[in-house]
Amino acid sequence: MGETGPLCLADMARLAEAALPPEVWDYVSGGSGAETTLAANRTALDDIALLPRVLGGFARACTGCRLLATDASMPVGVAPMAYQRLVHPDGELAAAEAARVAGIPYVVSTVASIRLEEIANVGADIWFQLYWQRDRAVVEDLIARAEQAGCQVLMLTVDLPILGRRLRDMRNAFSLPADVVAANLEGAPSRAHDTVTGESAIAAHAAAAFEAGLGWPDIEWLRARTSLPLVLKGILDPRDAVLAVESGMDGVVVSNHGGRQLDGAAASIDALPAVVKAVGDAVGDRCEVLLDGGIRSGTDILRALALGARGVLVGRPILHGLAVDGARGAAQVLSLLATELREAMTLAGCADVAAVRDLSTVEC
Amino acid sequence: MGETGPLCLADMARLAEAALPPEVWDYVSGGSGAETTLAANRTALDDIALLPRVLGGFARACTGCRLLATDASMPVGVAPMAYQRLVHPDGELAAAEAARVAGIPYVVSTVASIRLEEIANVGADIWFQLYWQRDRAVVEDLIARAEQAGCQVLMLTVDLPILGRRLRDMRNAFSLPADVVAANLEGAPSRAHDTVTGESAIAAHAAAAFEAGLGWPDIEWLRARTSLPLVLKGILDPRDAVLAVESGMDGVVVSNHGGRQLDGAAASIDALPAVVKAVGDAVGDRCEVLLDGGIRSGTDILRALALGARGVLVGRPILHGLAVDGARGAAQVLSLLATELREAMTLAGCADVAAVRDLSTVEC
Amino acid sequence: MGETGPLCLADMARLAEAALPPEVWDYVSGGSGAETTLAANRTALDDIALLPRVLGGFARACTGCRLLATDASMPVGVAPMAYQRLVHPDGELAAAEAARVAGIPYVVSTVASIRLEEIANVGADIWFQLYWQRDRAVVEDLIARAEQAGCQVLMLTVDLPILGRRLRDMRNAFSLPADVVAANLEGAPSRAHDTVTGESAIAAHAAAAFEAGLGWPDIEWLRARTSLPLVLKGILDPRDAVLAVESGMDGVVVSNHGGRQLDGAAASIDALPAVVKAVGDAVGDRCEVLLDGGIRSGTDILRALALGARGVLVGRPILHGLAVDGARGAAQVLSLLATELREAMTLAGCADVAAVRDLSTVEC
Amino acid sequence: MGETGPLCLADMARLAEAALPPEVWDYVSGGSGAETTLAANRTALDDIALLPRVLGGFARACTGCRLLATDASMPVGVAPMAYQRLVHPDGELAAAEAARVAGIPYVVSTVASIRLEEIANVGADIWFQLYWQRDRAVVEDLIARAEQAGCQVLMLTVDLPILGRRLRDMRNAFSLPADVVAANLEGAPSRAHDTVTGESAIAAHAAAAFEAGLGWPDIEWLRARTSLPLVLKGILDPRDAVLAVESGMDGVVVSNHGGRQLDGAAASIDALPAVVKAVGDAVGDRCEVLLDGGIRSGTDILRALALGARGVLVGRPILHGLAVDGARGAAQVLSLLATELREAMTLAGCADVAAVRDLSTVEC
Repeated sequence: MGETGPLCLADMARLAEAALPPEVWDYVSGGSGAETTLAANRTALDDIALLPRVLGGFARACTGCRLLATDASMPVGVAPMAYQRLVHPDGELAAAEAARVAGIPYVVSTVASIRLEEIANVGADIWFQLYWQRDRAVVEDLIARAEQAGCQVLMLTVDLPILGRRLRDMRNAFSLPADVVAANLEGAPSRAHDTVTGESAIAAHAAAAFEAGLGWPDIEWLRARTSLPLVLKGILDPRDAVLAVESGMDGVVVSNHGGRQLDGAAASIDALPAVVKAVGDAVGDRCEVLLDGGIRSGTDILRALALGARGVLVGRPILHGLAVDGARGAAQVLSLLATELREAMTLAGCADVAAVRDLSTVEC
Repeated sequence: MGETGPLCLADMARLAEAALPPEVWDYVSGGSGAETTLAANRTALDDIALLPRVLGGFARACTGCRLLATDASMPVGVAPMAYQRLVHPDGELAAAEAARVAGIPYVVSTVASIRLEEIANVGADIWFQLYWQRDRAVVEDLIARAEQAGCQVLMLTVDLPILGRRLRDMRNAFSLPADVVAANLEGAPSRAHDTVTGESAIAAHAAAAFEAGLGWPDIEWLRARTSLPLVLKGILDPRDAVLAVESGMDGVVVSNHGGRQLDGAAASIDALPAVVKAVGDAVGDRCEVLLDGGIRSGTDILRALALGARGVLVGRPILHGLAVDGARGAAQVLSLLATELREAMTLAGCADVAAVRDLSTVEC
Repeated sequence: MGETGPLCLADMARLAEAALPPEVWDYVSGGSGAETTLAANRTALDDIALLPRVLGGFARACTGCRLLATDASMPVGVAPMAYQRLVHPDGELAAAEAARVAGIPYVVSTVASIRLEEIANVGADIWFQLYWQRDRAVVEDLIARAEQAGCQVLMLTVDLPILGRRLRDMRNAFSLPADVVAANLEGAPSRAHDTVTGESAIAAHAAAAFEAGLGWPDIEWLRARTSLPLVLKGILDPRDAVLAVESGMDGVVVSNHGGRQLDGAAASIDALPAVVKAVGDAVGDRCEVLLDGGIRSGTDILRALALGARGVLVGRPILHGLAVDGARGAAQVLSLLATELREAMTLAGCADVAAVRDLSTVEC
Repeated sequence: MGETGPLCLADMARLAEAALPPEVWDYVSGGSGAETTLAANRTALDDIALLPRVLGGFARACTGCRLLATDASMPVGVAPMAYQRLVHPDGELAAAEAARVAGIPYVVSTVASIRLEEIANVGADIWFQLYWQRDRAVVEDLIARAEQAGCQVLMLTVDLPILGRRLRDMRNAFSLPADVVAANLEGAPSRAHDTVTGESAIAAHAAAAFEAGLGWPDIEWLRARTSLPLVLKGILDPRDAVLAVESGMDGVVVSNHGGRQLDGAAASIDALPAVVKAVGDAVGDRCEVLLDGGIRSGTDILRALALGARGVLVGRPILHGLAVDGARGAAQVLSLLATELREAMTLAGCADVAAVRDLSTVEC
């Protein structure tokens, strides 16, 4: 890309790969198993062709929207991602700052490498992502802290009873450096720093600390526990989406965890339409359907919205931006996305986000 | 290809790539974004398989047809393309001369690098392509000039409220050389010559000069303003095709602007059948459906016609011919196409253009 | 393949490519245009997956069958191919000898490089392929000679009003060597030996000598003219197959001329089922449907028969065999095919050819 | 894979390829003909995308199940494979030991290189695979021995009337080394050790010794002969599955023999759903449908079960394990599979094997 600097998210990914230690790059970019699902997320998006509209009679597309409890400058949130200090010393503070500048929600991970309260101080609209810990007292504490810190949404990850089998990390015997810790869980025992040949310390930590046996009754408990809007992240089967609705959820994220959990799971964009239909049939607009997995451009956002998503989460690209240039790099990623989205909406004749959902698509 | 000279349009493209400065080649051949749509235009055409007819009882296929207000030697027009002097000093004069020799219409671009009136003097059947300028007085002037110069059709481009994000041009900081100007807009302010790192000057010019907020009421204004046949170029959604019909349009061009505007838009050939059906349902033959995007052979013309197009526009190949050998090169391109088309029609048992539309196709 | 010798037809093709002058290899193996149809013939066959049957209770599959007026050892004929002396001095004599040894019909081409009567002396079951010449007296003479020489079937090629645009031959300025002539047409003017830059002399000859304007009335004339079984070769559209039936044809060959005529035509195997259905609906078994195009193995024969073909024609592989080792090479090709077919039938649980037609298939 | 050791079955395959003589690797890994079916087995599995369930409320998936007469730790058996001493001196003893450790059935091949009774002594749950020999006395003897040795299931291979045309073995003139013999058939004449250029000695042996003309009446004879559960291996067409049911079979294995018999046969996973439906319609659960062909991961097992299989057989990976490290290598393969399966079930929200069959799938 010469002197030009990154012009698209793929440029930023290439810069990040060059900037990061190989094992960190592997941790960030890898998937589970044969990485079939990781690849499918991208190819399935590429196969969605759009039929743009013309002559909309507007001069500037408005990308603003409401995502659950948050007003956002575009239908995008920063996906929850663990240990962001792995890629840059400023970690979550930098990423949240980028979200603040961009005007979109930032989802704080349970296993953030900086404490939730510090991240909240950045001033972004923040949501909190929950990995249900084996010790329910810890869960209760995390919920209380999220509420107190002003998190606007609570997003429970439901596709990680255990960590997916990420062969790159196992080959690298990947573990966290000493200065990167699960800051929200300080004091809790962690195996994420123990280097064991052929094993991922991240997986070992999840196995030790996360609750594997989570069930729908726990969701009801959670629903009763907090008045925050609740979102389940990691839904692919429409039957689960209906159960989520029936459990009083305010949203679901159609997600395969970026191809990092069950290898062989459907591309999230392929699973989206049936989930949208099931949720719509059950409660109309009352439960919002978000999507993540492979979103790398403004066109991808159009594809997801045209197939019924209310908004999308973007993950790895934020880490790429962080790796390259901290808060500035992450902001650049979001700025590129915002520009691409606005231009794509303009080219597709969509004056606002609602119009995007009315676009027709064709499978290639 | 040795001493033989170009035997197909792909040969000419290779010669042109060798002949042109890299940044001009990039400007000519590139698409927007990840160039998904650019590639799809070709692969979608290749996937259309034809069922030729036999024993038609004719010795020589007749390729002649009427395209809107013009009698043409074949169902092909030269697509409107900007700044043709970029690839050869004779620019539009040479291309129009090739169209004249071939007996097909030449569509003059609003941003031609030679004045419309000079091009008209070449003696080809000319149509005028309109980019609606912010200054409506300029638009009125362009229409009046087109009428006076004898343009037979007015073709309004509706898929360019802004320029697509063409990364190649941005990386090249592409701008026009001093001697290539928008000759029809002389006196108007232009940023197309300003070199800015990471930006396309062509995009900057479009942003500054073109009307981004064009709407259907403007089409009605235009319809009332001129008695020339009116065509909207850049329609992909059948709903827009119906609106065009209802606005009194005489034709539409199913087009994604050669993959240069919304990346992720459907291949034009994939969008064609639904548009043909919608237009036919609405007004029968009264509105003509043309197509552009990826046409590179006589067989491609058969594919488009078999799927319902009345005719096609050919763009980049003309520039390739110009780059290689001016008017002679462009004429060679059209001559190759004419030969290929006649031979393909003969091999497909189609005595005339109407018979081509009766061919059956199979998706591969 | 080391010392083993060819074990499949692909082996023989590789040996032939090494043995032949490049321009002859190009003439033999090339297709028209971008060679889309040439490639599609193979990929479409590869996409047909078979569901073999088991426990048929037979020890040895019987491959014998009747093809029109001929008893054959397997449902295969040698396709008509021009100028076989191009690849081996013994030309058609060697190929017919191979067919005789194999017990299958050999189709003599109008433009054979050895006289029909000499080929007939080899003792194979021969059919005669007709390219309708401009001079109808020549046509009448060819028919009379075919009848007198004991040809059992007359096969009229209907997909060659002109020659397809074969770029390889044009680039090579391909023409016949002086000692290879259209022996059946001796005395007739031929341009097939004139070398012209950028042109195929074969195409020039066809343009000069063959009747381009053949129509269905000519078929009726032919039907009245001879009592030989009549077959039209080069049918892809079921509407033409029905017309053939109505014109009293005894068979059709679903064919795109090996990808050498209309580039962009459907793979013959893709066109087969609709033709089989249309013919069956019209006359049941009374008109036989054969297929050629890409048959390279016993499994391919099963694929074609399972989709409804009565038999197949094999072309280029015979030339490969000839090129490698004359009659012996061609016989080796047919022997490999026979072995493969018998083994494939055995593995598919098909005791006889009729059982093959009852196999189910799945599109990959 | 560095010092880590194999982390997936593909790793083990790579290690095995490095460890084995090329002609043995070819024998193990090759398929018949153009190896179309061999490749299809894998690509068709990769194209099955799963929709995992969430919040199942269990902490540890239970992979245990019953396969015909055997309780197994997971829905997997070791496929019958000939001459396992080819890849390791301990051969079948080592493989059976691995199955014993894993707690899954081991299917002894008729052409095992160690006597059935010795293999039985290892203590695994064993089934016996029957190649019907021409000499019925040998068949009767094999059945009696299988019963006496405690085999729990008798599996008759029905897709090998003759050996498929395995070109690699023919090119290698593959034959058995002197110390590898068909131990169960000692005394019987064998050609499997005769090296003949261009031929596979394995094929020659099968042609000489196996009954090619097996039919449904033989199945009835067999059904009457033994009270062991009977399974037919090598069914792809649902019509044969129904005949199997009607012949009193207790199970069928949907299989194309690992792409080693009829090249062009459907991928077994593509044939599975129709067989499952036909069997279910005929007898509900009373006849079990197993599958083999390309299973290389826990996710593949989920794919097969989600499409209706009761269990799968795994073949080549066991040989890879044997080749790398004897019983320990084979056990490692099964251990990897068990881990992958349990983790995949956990990630798919399937507490037990029955839940896997309730998963939805999407074709990519």
